[in-house]
Amino acid sequence: MIKRDIFLGVDLGGTNIVLAGVISTGEIIKRLNISTPYPALPKKVVEAIVAGVKTLTMDLSGWKIRGLGIGCAGDIDYQKGMVRFSPNLGWRNFYLTRELAKKISLPILMDNDANVAALGAYFLEGKKKIKNLVCITLGTGVGGGLIFNGRLYRGATGSAGEIGHLTLAANGLLCKCGNNGCLERYVGAVYLKKTIQQRLKTKEGKKSILLDWLKDKSVQLSLRLLSKAAEQGDKLALQIWRDVGENLGVVVAGIVNLLNPEMIVFSGGVSQAQKFFLPTLKTVLCRRAFNAPVKAAKIVITKHSQDLGVVGAALLAAE
Amino acid sequence: MIKRDIFLGVDLGGTNIVLAGVISTGEIIKRLNISTPYPALPKKVVEAIVAGVKTLTMDLSGWKIRGLGIGCAGDIDYQKGMVRFSPNLGWRNFYLTRELAKKISLPILMDNDANVAALGAYFLEGKKKIKNLVCITLGTGVGGGLIFNGRLYRGATGSAGEIGHLTLAANGLLCKCGNNGCLERYVGAVYLKKTIQQRLKTKEGKKSILLDWLKDKSVQLSLRLLSKAAEQGDKLALQIWRDVGENLGVVVAGIVNLLNPEMIVFSGGVSQAQKFFLPTLKTVLCRRAFNAPVKAAKIVITKHSQDLGVVGAALLAAE
Repeated sequence: MIKRDIFLGVDLGGTNIVLAGVISTGEIIKRLNISTPYPALPKKVVEAIVAGVKTLTMDLSGWKIRGLGIGCAGDIDYQKGMVRFSPNLGWRNFYLTRELAKKISLPILMDNDANVAALGAYFLEGKKKIKNLVCITLGTGVGGGLIFNGRLYRGATGSAGEIGHLTLAANGLLCKCGNNGCLERYVGAVYLKKTIQQRLKTKEGKKSILLDWLKDKSVQLSLRLLSKAAEQGDKLALQIWRDVGENLGVVVAGIVNLLNPEMIVFSGGVSQAQKFFLPTLKTVLCRRAFNAPVKAAKIVITKHSQDLGVVGAALLAAE
Repeated sequence: MIKRDIFLGVDLGGTNIVLAGVISTGEIIKRLNISTPYPALPKKVVEAIVAGVKTLTMDLSGWKIRGLGIGCAGDIDYQKGMVRFSPNLGWRNFYLTRELAKKISLPILMDNDANVAALGAYFLEGKKKIKNLVCITLGTGVGGGLIFNGRLYRGATGSAGEIGHLTLAANGLLCKCGNNGCLERYVGAVYLKKTIQQRLKTKEGKKSILLDWLKDKSVQLSLRLLSKAAEQGDKLALQIWRDVGENLGVVVAGIVNLLNPEMIVFSGGVSQAQKFFLPTLKTVLCRRAFNAPVKAAKIVITKHSQDLGVVGAALLAAE
C-alpha cells in the first residue's frame, strides 16, 4: 500500500501547544492540544513537543510523515531555526529546531506565528488558486504575513510583514515601538482597551451601557464586552468599532495600492467583531484606494483563526 | 564567431524616446535619443520606434539581439502589451506591442515606467546581488516599483508599487486620486510647488529670498530654484526640504517595516536635492522603523536616473 504524504505542524504558544497532521491541501487529519509546560523551560517544552509528535505519529501510522514545521510567536530566525526572542515563552537565542532534531528524525523548520498564519491562510482561504495574499492578525497586537507569487515572503532579515507598525497618522499616538501613529496603537486589543477607558470618561462615554456593566467589579473590560454593548445599540461602542474600521481601512487602502493582492485575510480574536467594523473598513477602502486593485482584492474574515497557525506551520515543511 | 546576447530597450515618453542596446549586466552598449512625434499619433510613434530599432540594430551588428522591451508612463497592461491609458501620449487601449510585432521580429514586452525603472535599479544599483528592492521615483508625481526575490512584482492586476499613494496622514490634504494624505500630495513636484507658493505668503515666507527672485517675471518657481535658495541658507527653503525628508521618512519607515528590503533606490529629478532632504529622511526612518530591517535597508540615491527606464525596459525581455 502506498502511504500518502502528511506534514506535522506545531503551533507553539505561551499557554498551549497545538500539534496537527496536515495534508498538502491544508486539511487537518489529526489534531492534538497540550498545555505549554509552566514555567516554559526550553528543555521541558522540547520534551512536551517530542512527546506530542510521538503520539501524533502513532495516530498517523497510515501516512508517510514528510516533515515538521513550527510556528512560534516572537522574533524568529528562520534560517537558523532559532528563537531570537519570545516574550511569551521568556526565551532568548534558543536553537529550538536543533534541539528537536536530536530526538525527531524529520526535516524541521520554524518561522514566526504571523508568517505561518499567512501560509495557513494561503492554503485554507486562498486554496492555492491565487498568487498574492496579505494576512492580517488582529489580536493583542496586530501582525501580518505576506505571500507573493505563491510563496511566503520574508524580506532581507525575516522581519517582513509588520503591518501593525505601518503608520496611520504621522503625528499620531506614540506606539511602544517608538513610532508615532502605528496601526497597532489604534486597533491592537491592548491599546483599544485603553481607548475605551478614556472615552468612557468623556461626555459621550458617560451615556454608555458599558459604564453600568463595569460597576459590577466581577465584569472586566474586554473587546467581547464592547461587541456586546454594540449589539445592544450602544452609541459609544458602535462608534469605537467604526473607528477600528476607519483605521484599518486607511492601512488596507495603502496595502492595496502598494501590493495589489488578490486576497486580504483577517484572522484573530478582534476580527470576529467584523459585523461592527467591516462595513466602515470597506467604505474607507473604496474611497481611498484605486479602483482596479480594490476590485481585485477579496477581503476575507477567516473562520479558521484557530487553525491557520498549525496548518501553516505544517506546510512550511511542504514549501 | 559567437555573438553575445543583447537586449533592446525603449523608454517611451511624451517628449523623447530613448532606445538602447543593453547587456544582461545592465550596461548600455549603444544609445539613441529621438523626439517623440508631435502630435503623438500611434502610427507615427510606431514608425519612429521601428526606425530607431533599425538604426540601433545596424549599430549592433556584432551582437545577437534577443528581445525588445518597452517602458511607458501610464496604465499599462503587461499581459496584453496594451497601453490602457497614457496621459502623456494621449492614448487609450492601444496594443503597442502587437503593432510593433508586425514590423519587428523579436519577442516584445512592455510595462509601465515605474516597473521598468525598478528593474533598471535592480541591475544598476542592486547588481543582482540582492533579492528585494524598492524603487521610488520622485518627479512630477511619486511612483514606485517592487522587486521581490529577484523578480519584478506586479500584483494581481499589474498595479502594484503605487508608493505615491500610500497614506502619510489619514486626515491629510486631499490628493487628486481621491484619498487624503497621500505621500504624492506632499512630495510630488506639482504639489510641492503649490506648497511653496502658499508658504511664501506666510510670515516665515515673507523673509525668503525666493520672493525677491520671483519678482523677476522671467524666473519661474521650480524645485531647482528651491534648492538654489536652500544652497544660500534660505530658512524657508531649507525647512521645506526638511519637510520633504520627514514625509518621505514616514512612508519609507512603513515600507521598511512591511517589506524589509535590502535596498531602497530613489530616482527622478527631485531626488537630486538629496543634500537637503536625505539627512532628515534617515533620522526619521531610524526613529520610526524597527532596528534590524533599518540596518538591512541600504538607501541609495541613484546617479542613473536617466538610464533606469531604458535599461529596465531592455531587461524586461531578459527576465
